[in-house]
Amino acid sequence: MRNPQLNAAGGLQHLLTIEGLPREILNEILDTAAPFTEVAEREVKKLPLLRGKSVFNLFFENSTRTRTTFEIAAKRLSADVINLNIGTSSASKGETLLDTVDNLCAMQADMFVVRHASSGAPFLIARHLAAMGYDHIHVINAGDGRHAHPTQGLLDMYTIRHYKRDFTRLSVAIVGDVLHSRVARSQIQALKTLGVPDLRVIGPKTLIPADAEGLGVRVFHDMRAGLKEVDVVMMLRLQNERMQGALLPSPQEFFKYYGLTADKLACARPDAIVMHPGPMNRGVEIDSAVADGPHAVILPQVTFGIAVRMAVMSMLAGG
Amino acid sequence: MRNPQLNAAGGLQHLLTIEGLPREILNEILDTAAPFTEVAEREVKKLPLLRGKSVFNLFFENSTRTRTTFEIAAKRLSADVINLNIGTSSASKGETLLDTVDNLCAMQADMFVVRHASSGAPFLIARHLAAMGYDHIHVINAGDGRHAHPTQGLLDMYTIRHYKRDFTRLSVAIVGDVLHSRVARSQIQALKTLGVPDLRVIGPKTLIPADAEGLGVRVFHDMRAGLKEVDVVMMLRLQNERMQGALLPSPQEFFKYYGLTADKLACARPDAIVMHPGPMNRGVEIDSAVADGPHAVILPQVTFGIAVRMAVMSMLAGG
Amino acid sequence: MRNPQLNAAGGLQHLLTIEGLPREILNEILDTAAPFTEVAEREVKKLPLLRGKSVFNLFFENSTRTRTTFEIAAKRLSADVINLNIGTSSASKGETLLDTVDNLCAMQADMFVVRHASSGAPFLIARHLAAMGYDHIHVINAGDGRHAHPTQGLLDMYTIRHYKRDFTRLSVAIVGDVLHSRVARSQIQALKTLGVPDLRVIGPKTLIPADAEGLGVRVFHDMRAGLKEVDVVMMLRLQNERMQGALLPSPQEFFKYYGLTADKLACARPDAIVMHPGPMNRGVEIDSAVADGPHAVILPQVTFGIAVRMAVMSMLAGG
Repeated sequence: MRNPQLNAAGGLQHLLTIEGLPREILNEILDTAAPFTEVAEREVKKLPLLRGKSVFNLFFENSTRTRTTFEIAAKRLSADVINLNIGTSSASKGETLLDTVDNLCAMQADMFVVRHASSGAPFLIARHLAAMGYDHIHVINAGDGRHAHPTQGLLDMYTIRHYKRDFTRLSVAIVGDVLHSRVARSQIQALKTLGVPDLRVIGPKTLIPADAEGLGVRVFHDMRAGLKEVDVVMMLRLQNERMQGALLPSPQEFFKYYGLTADKLACARPDAIVMHPGPMNRGVEIDSAVADGPHAVILPQVTFGIAVRMAVMSMLAGG
Repeated sequence: MRNPQLNAAGGLQHLLTIEGLPREILNEILDTAAPFTEVAEREVKKLPLLRGKSVFNLFFENSTRTRTTFEIAAKRLSADVINLNIGTSSASKGETLLDTVDNLCAMQADMFVVRHASSGAPFLIARHLAAMGYDHIHVINAGDGRHAHPTQGLLDMYTIRHYKRDFTRLSVAIVGDVLHSRVARSQIQALKTLGVPDLRVIGPKTLIPADAEGLGVRVFHDMRAGLKEVDVVMMLRLQNERMQGALLPSPQEFFKYYGLTADKLACARPDAIVMHPGPMNRGVEIDSAVADGPHAVILPQVTFGIAVRMAVMSMLAGG
Repeated sequence: MRNPQLNAAGGLQHLLTIEGLPREILNEILDTAAPFTEVAEREVKKLPLLRGKSVFNLFFENSTRTRTTFEIAAKRLSADVINLNIGTSSASKGETLLDTVDNLCAMQADMFVVRHASSGAPFLIARHLAAMGYDHIHVINAGDGRHAHPTQGLLDMYTIRHYKRDFTRLSVAIVGDVLHSRVARSQIQALKTLGVPDLRVIGPKTLIPADAEGLGVRVFHDMRAGLKEVDVVMMLRLQNERMQGALLPSPQEFFKYYGLTADKLACARPDAIVMHPGPMNRGVEIDSAVADGPHAVILPQVTFGIAVRMAVMSMLAGG
């Protein structure tokens, strides 16, 4: 079966997950994003690439931050953006997800940015569009359940490439709640595809997937050992609901063992970069001294995130 | 007294209800809508007809779907659109409806799209604008209580004309909760004005207005009898609140007698079209086999709805 | 220490409060606003001054009315506007105010319009931007706690100048809950700076600040005495929460003593103007006969408010 994300010509049809995306497509997205970082520096941060296109932010789960990044990206490409918080809308009137999608297609939507609490919802929509023959409508997954958050993974790759250039010589550690993180899944897939030879995950046993070694990563439960000589430290956000759960003793204890402090960071290479997808829990997974320190590239990640989203949108719209 | 929807020259000043609108105006709206359906097919779905105009979506009652259709229509005409959910706003600060309107007029509003739980609210606003001498500000009723939903009625007429051409030779049946439906009221008025000779309503006694015959329609309580040889089947949405009420035994029983199935639809003409204003309650008022079947024109209705709203907005703004 | 609102060249860097703003800047804002009132009269109410700029409405406290005025002003200047209701967003995910701001800066924000329940929040943001070296990002205070609401104060000044021309010969009375009003604070500062020689506050002892005389105003507890021969009557809105509190006997009693009626207004000059920041509590602080009468300039205030906000935004963006 063809990868549902690619069209017949092998170009990007949807962005649903990084899993299975060929390295050439990943590199094409990163290459396309580069000039968009410069647009943001201009007086007039506006390009006409999506002029007259209708982009729907279809958020079945509230996330102002993620919605904002896509809204800015689409507006800077001159699209018409319509925000739909579906939790409070048709869904509560008993309409099915696919009826909602059909209706928006009938309104001549060009692109859906989909956020959903259920893993797979954006796939379901993409498959439905294909079945209906709507080849001109594109889906971007903006986070689905525990499954994937591909634009986050891509902006992370952009950030690493920006600071470290060559993926094939890097040691990278992902730290925290790997088990429940869609961000971590997207990161691991991207880093493997781009050829990172030394990929590690660090966390307590309760928060590391049982099959982690099978994913081609090395597992560390001791943070200092795991950070040893790494080039890149990718912190994960500890979800609030996890903090009250049975999987963790307390935020304080988590911080003691797995919070990134300057002291632990000293185990990494001197020029290591520290990343975080935000929003940060200062004093839980990361110490403020590190978050605001010279190794952190957390705010550049946000900047690159807009450019990467503009790149994905313009590739989809131009395809 | 002059029809408050028409200006001194007989042109459209507001769109409040289909009741009393002359056939020429209805046809003008449908004729104006036609080219807008083509705009939606273009690469750049954008016309400058409302550029620099301020359109306020004044929603005193939540309806994401309806708000979205007006938002898209206005944005494709290049208007500046401002969404106001008034339930959570000034109204709760004790400001009166007309004070809110006065304020938005003072902000140089050009058009109000008004949704309100109370029948007559858009009329009240239109009358106030006339009293204040604001002839350049226009009101579109986007649904008021049980009273009217004229753009829905108009898009239904556009759909019928698209598929059946000549209204004066048609048999049309409206099925379901006619009593509580503002959509049904708008449909009946439009179909009568456009000269439909055989107009029927079908539903249980508890959901058909007592004076239905007086409106010039034939009443059927047996669905098969009512659907016999009709050209057009217009299903109504069964409101959730009605399903729990005393007027109906249960959604299952309603479906048994008045849900549109392929079996019942076989009573209509072989080329009959099936319409529904959405969102559909599948398995309550309509069976999925019909909703997704060859007779259904439910999604084209949505597409035509954008064009009709663009037509109304451009006629009002150009008037 | 330099006034944090001014840049090194003495131009406007942020608009946080009227306190400490030199008279030249106030006059520059009012002068800049004048042509924007004419833009609003045009067919196409659109200027390209903020084209490609990203304006964030950062509302930590809900206020549809104020948000709308800024949204219209920014859109008429062709900015991209992104509305963020932060109460429902990142803040609830445990992110700090300044982390939110840092993230939006990293998304290349150009301007923040900030509304916050805490006095000083917009200052905190402005100081943080300065510390980070973000000189190209500007803050407008859209109301912070009981502290300030400078664009309201400025539009009031515009209104007075429009009707009365010369501030240096005026008697002005501010009436109502001066103690809790950020609007009153901004008004008093502006009127003093612009040279109003006779400035009065009128209200019950419980609602007048203890140090009012020290602010250079005359205090009246009797409304008729306070209104005697004034040129301008500035009514304040009585907050709902105040009405239920211990500071006031009842809305009816407040109206009896401090509600503006035609009878009390007769004490003022025959050509006095009556102002109110809205939304009005008719029958509490103002009688409908006055609110809708010939002395009221309440709706022109709203119109001038859009022009003043366009002026502030264009001065900041052009600086």
